[in-house]
Amino acid sequence: MSTDVSRRNVLKSAGIAAGAAVVGGGLVGTAVMPTVEAKKSEFPWPYKKVKTKKVADRGYANYFVAGCMYGVFEAVAGEVADKLGKPYTDFPFAMSSYGGGGIASWGSTCGTCNGAAMAIAMFHTGSLRSQLINEVYAWYENTKLPEYEPKNPVKVDKSFNMAKSKSESVLCHASVSNWVESSKLSGFSVERAERCGRLVADVAAFTVDLLNKAAKGKFVPNNQINSVAEGCLACHSKGHTPGDTLSKMNCTSCHEPH
Amino acid sequence: MSTDVSRRNVLKSAGIAAGAAVVGGGLVGTAVMPTVEAKKSEFPWPYKKVKTKKVADRGYANYFVAGCMYGVFEAVAGEVADKLGKPYTDFPFAMSSYGGGGIASWGSTCGTCNGAAMAIAMFHTGSLRSQLINEVYAWYENTKLPEYEPKNPVKVDKSFNMAKSKSESVLCHASVSNWVESSKLSGFSVERAERCGRLVADVAAFTVDLLNKAAKGKFVPNNQINSVAEGCLACHSKGHTPGDTLSKMNCTSCHEPH
Repeated sequence: MSTDVSRRNVLKSAGIAAGAAVVGGGLVGTAVMPTVEAKKSEFPWPYKKVKTKKVADRGYANYFVAGCMYGVFEAVAGEVADKLGKPYTDFPFAMSSYGGGGIASWGSTCGTCNGAAMAIAMFHTGSLRSQLINEVYAWYENTKLPEYEPKNPVKVDKSFNMAKSKSESVLCHASVSNWVESSKLSGFSVERAERCGRLVADVAAFTVDLLNKAAKGKFVPNNQINSVAEGCLACHSKGHTPGDTLSKMNCTSCHEPH
Repeated sequence: MSTDVSRRNVLKSAGIAAGAAVVGGGLVGTAVMPTVEAKKSEFPWPYKKVKTKKVADRGYANYFVAGCMYGVFEAVAGEVADKLGKPYTDFPFAMSSYGGGGIASWGSTCGTCNGAAMAIAMFHTGSLRSQLINEVYAWYENTKLPEYEPKNPVKVDKSFNMAKSKSESVLCHASVSNWVESSKLSGFSVERAERCGRLVADVAAFTVDLLNKAAKGKFVPNNQINSVAEGCLACHSKGHTPGDTLSKMNCTSCHEPH
């Protein structure tokens, strides 16, 4: 179960310009206590400040209901929806479970990251949306996780010592592999499931903390990309001979540095 | 702009069990011609057969409005919503634009793949949902795309000869890089934007073709994973010493075969 990354190669590859503009549109959601009647024409969804600890607990519980993407998305957007009420009530939160295991177990984008971006996209458009997603992703790649400690762990005893690991990637496959390397436990173990549940709590809490700051006009984008990708893109991005690479992911998770 | 993949290394890494179960819930959407009143408790959303060519054209046009993920998601789910009417009318299709450029230009999961999975998740749950997503992803990795030819190209002349390429990955970064390699054009060019618009059309059409078959009970899952990953996982997946790897992505897009 060791990871040998010593011979990874630089792929001199080229990129893409971001294709996604932002459009307006109606929005509906799910809520428990209707207090605001939002209009169809309101998009993105108005945000209401929520408590990070409550969202973390909700995310952790969610994971064991419908996985990682649903876990984060429903914890963030659902907590806000509980405050804003109709017409958000009927939003199909269940559909977001498709992102589990990096989308139907393909190991691509970690469901916590996909769910965080989807939730952010309910509340923000344009460059602020991108900055908020960047901040979550750059933190996710470079932080030893999970940090969350549940009062009553679902899959392990209270005495279990949870290994922490840096994902160095926003991809499920790499994120889990690095945790397996760190913990010496199986990717198919109950401990791995417990780890991903706690990861959901961490990502959901980090995301609402940013959203709370943005709501007060106090969000400052200061950690938008990892230093590895920043260094590589200085030569491999737009306008440079080797490059035109589109990616903000940590390059050395797949490529050998040079 | 060449791609050198000759020294890529095997990462002996370990995986994850799919965490995502499926839950029920209400659903709403957007529509033009209301014909069916769906109920909150109906989840997933009832599907209605639609025309692949119409969805392809809609997806291509969508791309130039709000990018690749929105392009596929809105073309598939929006076309169905047009037939089913209220209460789908207010579904916030615009939020799906977050997936452009592999989510906010991070180069992770290709937005067409993320959008296809999100659309499938509106109509199906459980193993059928996963099988449909698998079929789209395995086809996406191994097919020379784009195949779609617009009547009136948005970014290039009608005479332009569009290069085709296999993505060999569901990741935006790899998919675009392989097209850049094949076309010898920049990832930041108008031709690349045109390519991604046509890719949206292809993925949207392929997805609804599967959904149409599933609606008639005639979907047969026969292309669920690429042969490379299938071979690797025979040793590197659950229960094997080197492994516990979770990923269905083509392994040799990042790892050296051995």
